[in-house]
Amino acid sequence: MNDIAPLSRIRVVLAQPSHPGNIGAAARAMKTMGLDRLYLVRPLRFPDPQARAMSANALDVLERAVICATLDEALAGTAIQIAFSARTRELSHPALDARAAAAEAIDCAAAQEAALVFGSEDAGLANEEVLRCNRLAHIPADPSCSSLNLAAAVQVAAYEIRLAALARRAPGAHCAAVPELARHEDVENFYVHLEQSLIASGFLNPRYPRRLMERLRRLFSRTQLEKDEVSILRGMLSRWDSRRRPDGDNS
Amino acid sequence: MNDIAPLSRIRVVLAQPSHPGNIGAAARAMKTMGLDRLYLVRPLRFPDPQARAMSANALDVLERAVICATLDEALAGTAIQIAFSARTRELSHPALDARAAAAEAIDCAAAQEAALVFGSEDAGLANEEVLRCNRLAHIPADPSCSSLNLAAAVQVAAYEIRLAALARRAPGAHCAAVPELARHEDVENFYVHLEQSLIASGFLNPRYPRRLMERLRRLFSRTQLEKDEVSILRGMLSRWDSRRRPDGDNS
Repeated sequence: MNDIAPLSRIRVVLAQPSHPGNIGAAARAMKTMGLDRLYLVRPLRFPDPQARAMSANALDVLERAVICATLDEALAGTAIQIAFSARTRELSHPALDARAAAAEAIDCAAAQEAALVFGSEDAGLANEEVLRCNRLAHIPADPSCSSLNLAAAVQVAAYEIRLAALARRAPGAHCAAVPELARHEDVENFYVHLEQSLIASGFLNPRYPRRLMERLRRLFSRTQLEKDEVSILRGMLSRWDSRRRPDGDNS
Repeated sequence: MNDIAPLSRIRVVLAQPSHPGNIGAAARAMKTMGLDRLYLVRPLRFPDPQARAMSANALDVLERAVICATLDEALAGTAIQIAFSARTRELSHPALDARAAAAEAIDCAAAQEAALVFGSEDAGLANEEVLRCNRLAHIPADPSCSSLNLAAAVQVAAYEIRLAALARRAPGAHCAAVPELARHEDVENFYVHLEQSLIASGFLNPRYPRRLMERLRRLFSRTQLEKDEVSILRGMLSRWDSRRRPDGDNS
């Protein structure tokens, strides 16, 4: 189903979601990050056309969602259960941020099942629900407006899960086709050409160079010029140069 | 408004959003992360009751949204413009992931304005829109289902922005004297000047442009041009231009 094995051992649990649109949007958020195991504890309305509409291409995630009567049922078989909450808890687990929580979930999912647990839209997770989990996580948010939409919170958590999974993967993975970079000597020849053109045009007075070439080197150094780009730049210079000759060799 | 100063210099630009619910949800996503400057380029329906409903506590963000006729208008005054796209581009800027892009935006926002740019729900950003930005970012996603809901993408980007801002706030964070970056409109004017010079010189045939300007935009986008550098480049162009006139105003 997904492209990274441990992701198949991570489930997303929504406890008593009230808006079916959020269930669909959460399914879509999961699937974009390679998660596909959705558990719903006493959803108010499900199945529902609004859930289907919001799920976009993640209809399969919705259709295989597991409906549970209790949170315990949804958490059965998991080794780590991470409760996501915006509120700080008076008497609770020490809170991890979403990134640290994702790293723990992925470490666990190398061999065992893990659950990401989200409360209802209005009330979040009740204390007794949090206490049935063994981790508490929060998504860093502005204190004046700390309540994310349910599906948005699932999106952020799933995103961190995916990044953690990618980080755990064997090194030497990504090597996309990269354009050929210009060689040192080609870039140096470009600078020589550029300087000559600037002197010939009158923009650079060799007696008072005022660090102009240094500045231009600094500019182009930052780009990491590609081979083809040096050819284009030199072509441009040649064309400008040729316009300058009084006897006009504009071939 | 928000609790971390650089966040007030970051705007979120939605190019031609078609669903008002997404605009409201994006406003909420922004506000949870301390962002409050929303720009809308030709929204299909706005204002709209659905946008208000989905904005939850972020109604103020909606009400102060700036409606723009063009993307350039929305980007005016910004030094960094980050185009978010799920698609890879044949001929484009090298893509950053969302985390690296957020770090760049926050570095910029210490002193100047930055924009996070998102395309429409159906089509995303057009190539020509991406080319008006100087960064391209993607949110790592499952290749089989890589299209996040618009507001979900804004949520992830805003989340990374907030984390980057928090990381920079650490005591003694580096704040070396950074050169002033060129503003969007100054860079666009440079491209206009460059194109005119290339046409006048004969290097660029407007009937067969062969994507030359796209390639040059890509090259200079990578550099993050400074204000003084744009002045130098335009001075060089003016000098080359003046040499071309047959009646020779070579002052």
